[in-house]
Amino acid sequence: MAIELFNDGNHRCIKFDDLTKEGEIPANQFMIVQDKRGVLLDPGGNKLFSQLSVEISMYAPPQRLEYIFLSHQDPDVGAGLNGWLLMTDAKIVISALWTRFIPNFCTSSFAENRVIAVPDEGMSLEFVGNEIKLIPAHFLHSPGNFHLYDSVSKILFTGDLGASIAPPFENITSLEQFQEHIQYMSGFHARYIPHSAACKQWASIARTLDIDMIVPQHGARFSGKELVNAFIDWVDGLTCALG
Amino acid sequence: MAIELFNDGNHRCIKFDDLTKEGEIPANQFMIVQDKRGVLLDPGGNKLFSQLSVEISMYAPPQRLEYIFLSHQDPDVGAGLNGWLLMTDAKIVISALWTRFIPNFCTSSFAENRVIAVPDEGMSLEFVGNEIKLIPAHFLHSPGNFHLYDSVSKILFTGDLGASIAPPFENITSLEQFQEHIQYMSGFHARYIPHSAACKQWASIARTLDIDMIVPQHGARFSGKELVNAFIDWVDGLTCALG
Repeated sequence: MAIELFNDGNHRCIKFDDLTKEGEIPANQFMIVQDKRGVLLDPGGNKLFSQLSVEISMYAPPQRLEYIFLSHQDPDVGAGLNGWLLMTDAKIVISALWTRFIPNFCTSSFAENRVIAVPDEGMSLEFVGNEIKLIPAHFLHSPGNFHLYDSVSKILFTGDLGASIAPPFENITSLEQFQEHIQYMSGFHARYIPHSAACKQWASIARTLDIDMIVPQHGARFSGKELVNAFIDWVDGLTCALG
Repeated sequence: MAIELFNDGNHRCIKFDDLTKEGEIPANQFMIVQDKRGVLLDPGGNKLFSQLSVEISMYAPPQRLEYIFLSHQDPDVGAGLNGWLLMTDAKIVISALWTRFIPNFCTSSFAENRVIAVPDEGMSLEFVGNEIKLIPAHFLHSPGNFHLYDSVSKILFTGDLGASIAPPFENITSLEQFQEHIQYMSGFHARYIPHSAACKQWASIARTLDIDMIVPQHGARFSGKELVNAFIDWVDGLTCALG
C-alpha cells in the first residue's frame, strides 16, 4: 500500500511498505515527488523492480526520476539497480566509499557518468528548486552511510537507523507508543550497529536539523517534534555491539 | 591468473586475482579443492560469473562445489549468486545476520534449503573429511562477518581484513616488506573498520589458531608464521574510524 507521508498540494512524500515477499527482509521504499519529477530512495532488489516501477508511475513517469538515492551498499537497498538505470535517466547517489561497488549491481555502461559520489561530510542536491540534504550517518550500520533530509516536508529518512521488526504500529505519535515500540527496535540496534560513538555523532548532527518526521527503511516511523526528539535521545543513549 | 597458494598433492588452495575489470573494486576469489570437490569463497558479482566458472572448471566440475562461502553481504562478495545457485548444488554459507538478504541476489526458489546460517560464535564444516572453521570477524567491516580457516593448508582467508589497494607485492614474506606494505592497507582500515575493539576481539581469536598464511580478499597475502604474527599484531594495534 502507498502511504502519503506528506502532501502540501505540490510536494509529496510517499512510502511503499508491502512490496517485499515472505522470507525477505520487510522494507519500505520511498519516493519524493513534485511537478511530476521524482526522487526514489533505497528501491531494493530485482524482485521489487517491476511492482515498484508500476507503483511510482501513479505519481510520476519513471523516466522523470531525477535521483535514485542508495543510503548504503546493502543488497536490500540497491541490488535491483540495473532495471532502474535502464528505465530512467536518474543519477545514482551513494557514498563515495561505495561507488566502485555499483558495477556489481548492473551493466557497467548503464552507470557511466550517472553516479554522484557523496563525500563523507555530506552534500546538498537541488530538486525542483528545493534542497535535499545528505546527512552523514556513517557506521549506522554501514561504514559509508547517509540519511536523506527533505527540506520541504522536513522528513529525515534514516535508512537502517530506527529499523523495527514487525511493530504493531506503523506510525508512532505519542511518547507512550514510543516506550512500547522500543522493544521492536532494540535487537537490531544492539547487534548491527557497531558502537555508541557513531550514535552520538549522528545525534549531534540530527539536533541541528528542523525535523518533523523520522522515517526508517524498515518498520514504523516517528511523527511530530516530540517523537523526533525522543528518537534522537534514544539513539544518543544506545549501547551497541562493541560498546 | 590462478595462483596456487597450497598444494600437498591432494588438497589445493587457488587464488584468482585478475578477473575484475577496470572501474570495479579489484578482488581476489578463492577455491579450495580436493578429490574434485570444491569450496568457493566470495565469488563476486555477475560479471565474474562466466569467467570464474571456466577458471574453476580447471580444478573441479562446478557441479561438485560443496559450499559457496560469503564472508559478508557486500555486492562484491555475492551479487552473482544466482548463476552459482543455478549451476551447482552447493550450499550457501553466510552469517545468520544476512541470510534474509540472499533473496535480493537471486531467484528465491534457487536458494530454498541451501543456506547455512552461521551463528555469531562461528561453526565448523566438514569438507572431504577435513575441517573448515568459520571464525568470527564481526565489524571487520560488516556487522555479521566471518573468516574461513582451512585446517589442511592452515590458511586463514580474512575477507576485507588486510585488504590492500594496488600493492607492489602479491606475497609479503619478510618483515621489511610488511613495513613497506602497511601504507597500502592503512587508508582502508582507518575508514571502513568502525572501532579498535573489533580488531582486538579478532586478534585474540586469531592467536589461538595455527595459521601459516593470511589471505585477504583484496590485494596481497602474508606468508609464514612470522608474517602472520606481524599482521595480527598490526591489527591488534589499529586505531579505527570511531576510535
